[in-house]
Amino acid sequence: MTLVVQKYGGSSVADAECVQRVARRVVAAREAGHDVVVVVSAMGDTTDELLDLADRISTGPAGRELDMLLTAGERVSMALLAMAVTELGHHATSFTGAQAGMITDAVHGRARIVEVVPDRIRAALAAGSVVIVAGFQGVSQDTRDVTTLGRGGSDTTAVALAAALDADLCEIYTDVDGVFTADPRIVPAARALSEVGYDEMLELAAHGAKILHSRCVEYAKRYRVPLRVRSSFADDIGSAAAHAGTRITPTKEGTPTKEGTTAPAMEAPLISGIAHDRGRSKITVVGVPDKPGAAAVVFGALADAGCDIDMIVQNASTEATDCTDISFTLPASGTEPALEALRRIQQDTGFPALRLDDRVGKLSVVGLGMRSHPGVSATLFSALADTGVNIQMISTSEIRTSVVVHADDIEAAARAVHTAFGLDSERPEAVVHGGTGR
Amino acid sequence: MTLVVQKYGGSSVADAECVQRVARRVVAAREAGHDVVVVVSAMGDTTDELLDLADRISTGPAGRELDMLLTAGERVSMALLAMAVTELGHHATSFTGAQAGMITDAVHGRARIVEVVPDRIRAALAAGSVVIVAGFQGVSQDTRDVTTLGRGGSDTTAVALAAALDADLCEIYTDVDGVFTADPRIVPAARALSEVGYDEMLELAAHGAKILHSRCVEYAKRYRVPLRVRSSFADDIGSAAAHAGTRITPTKEGTPTKEGTTAPAMEAPLISGIAHDRGRSKITVVGVPDKPGAAAVVFGALADAGCDIDMIVQNASTEATDCTDISFTLPASGTEPALEALRRIQQDTGFPALRLDDRVGKLSVVGLGMRSHPGVSATLFSALADTGVNIQMISTSEIRTSVVVHADDIEAAARAVHTAFGLDSERPEAVVHGGTGR
Repeated sequence: MTLVVQKYGGSSVADAECVQRVARRVVAAREAGHDVVVVVSAMGDTTDELLDLADRISTGPAGRELDMLLTAGERVSMALLAMAVTELGHHATSFTGAQAGMITDAVHGRARIVEVVPDRIRAALAAGSVVIVAGFQGVSQDTRDVTTLGRGGSDTTAVALAAALDADLCEIYTDVDGVFTADPRIVPAARALSEVGYDEMLELAAHGAKILHSRCVEYAKRYRVPLRVRSSFADDIGSAAAHAGTRITPTKEGTPTKEGTTAPAMEAPLISGIAHDRGRSKITVVGVPDKPGAAAVVFGALADAGCDIDMIVQNASTEATDCTDISFTLPASGTEPALEALRRIQQDTGFPALRLDDRVGKLSVVGLGMRSHPGVSATLFSALADTGVNIQMISTSEIRTSVVVHADDIEAAARAVHTAFGLDSERPEAVVHGGTGR
Repeated sequence: MTLVVQKYGGSSVADAECVQRVARRVVAAREAGHDVVVVVSAMGDTTDELLDLADRISTGPAGRELDMLLTAGERVSMALLAMAVTELGHHATSFTGAQAGMITDAVHGRARIVEVVPDRIRAALAAGSVVIVAGFQGVSQDTRDVTTLGRGGSDTTAVALAAALDADLCEIYTDVDGVFTADPRIVPAARALSEVGYDEMLELAAHGAKILHSRCVEYAKRYRVPLRVRSSFADDIGSAAAHAGTRITPTKEGTPTKEGTTAPAMEAPLISGIAHDRGRSKITVVGVPDKPGAAAVVFGALADAGCDIDMIVQNASTEATDCTDISFTLPASGTEPALEALRRIQQDTGFPALRLDDRVGKLSVVGLGMRSHPGVSATLFSALADTGVNIQMISTSEIRTSVVVHADDIEAAARAVHTAFGLDSERPEAVVHGGTGR
């Protein structure tokens, strides 16, 4: 008997028929002999509709009330799914975040999990029930108020429950067939990876891959939760299901995973995948005095303004001026607050100008192989050059190389780089079913 | 400083604009110096929509899951109302049934209130907050599961909170201007009563007046909660509001009410109002042996089948046969189960036949004055005779006389009786705004 945690996003439970399809999948796992815990998001666009109602009523709703409002969505989907599973002849019990023991801090809208106390879940499993849990929500340790976990919340709920219950597998069901080598909407030759390591998945998630939120991957890595990402729409219930989707594993270098298999390090491709992020702005602070503390002042001001800074590049100063230019990228939506924050410190800091380019994108190549293969950068840069794409900024980590290019160049760049690294599938079969859940 | 509990039904919070209108009314009470606790139902048709979803997924959903599903509706409306009140510059805090301390038994779908422990409400009031509470819902003492109170649930929530908090007034806001002398949709000359006693209100509610559920009136009577029914659509915020709607008071016979006023017994009309109920069936058990225990067998079988029996009439037996006919009425929707239950006992009981009339209605005249005025029945019967309405059954209580007539005669009967008892308003001004909340 193994314990499986399955998470279904909003598009997987968008209407009554979808809920019934999910129920069949849940029951298939149960009938295969597993204990099953299911985490669900709100149905389809419910969350957006509730947010729209709140917008029409309030200019800045209190976090406590907004969380109370939004958590109604998962109560609906979890109760319906429990009914659908029961209708198929299996006992099912649904639990809210509070009932499931998801204890959080009191930061409404983006609460952090403090502790998971799944006593009621354990009791229901012991009684032979399928357990359905509302994703995205918890209860504050201090105030006993309902909280939400913010972006990636339902995935994080699933991974946190899998860790607390010592589950054998956490399956994240979504509307695509797994983690792809690139976004199949812009790179038709992209293909689903059968396996990817936590670290590469973290880099892919942090640099634009929407499939998993980096928070959930971090959590999974910390507690070594075996993850699998798969499609809830694929018609593979009970057939070869063990090999469907993408497994996200502790490592790709030959360490045995919890399930006892060994990741195929020898066959691992040099590069796992390509992530892109189109809606970025690039701001350059021109002529910052090249002295200790200058960068700290600049980025301290940006942090105080709540700006979500991404890549930072500073070149060596030219001897002539003892000044340097500092460039950084950030989500385009954060451009104005960042510019305002910088203008406030302009006089004190003494830089003469700000330059803005609000039409840039970022392309990131991720792979463990990069550590020992200096040729990766060369392949990347020449692929871009051959496509006529100009590189504006470069940033690297141990397992990632990112370039900033003009937003209009992103798609062509992604396709060229995907081909250059030998990632193209022989027969394109990208399957994308629409939006992503939360 | 007085404490007011206000309850708003689903039609009063049907959309964002309605929620904002309710918020203005709540704030007006707060700014008049009251502590305010607000009980809200789910928005508009939310509950029906959720029930429809459940119907499409399950033939007989578990009560626990159905309650979890339905209670999502109030979470949405209460959070939105809290936001709307906050937007008007007052602090507001919303509480679910569980957070509000509505402790119930574990009978899902129609839980009874066991205890009200409003500690968090008291704390929020003490901190200067308007308190918003989800109607219709509670939490089970034994299982810690979410429960619903069933029909009339939100009204009962409001009255129970008013009793537990020792409120000075409990206002039930709805889509009509108060308790009417008859349903203004069929009796245009009906007018809103300024005052009615608990007992008459109970009879009116039990015999077809939809304005308040009898359960809530019973609760109010037991704990002597001063009730007022009024319209949430009337444009009377802050103006002469103290006299709007219908007050439901401990008595109409001169006992001081909690608010210190004395009900005007001398001016009390003989008859308070007329209730009607159209969708009834009449079943006659023909030729029941006139011996002890026969009626017990018949109504025992009906009770076991869960039939909701209303009027029962048994005539004296004719000497020739030593048999009697027993007739009773029940909601038309309960006809089939009742007939089946009776057929099962037909052989043992030895009655030769069943007669069904599924097109009857009930008209009830309610008023304290009846006790000492034997002329009431005469007025009632001659008004019906003058209108050509045939009386099929008659039943009386201390303060009520009911007749069963053909369903098609109900409207004409109601208008004639309303006129005969001098209840007609001089200038008809019936205001009805649509459906009723739960």
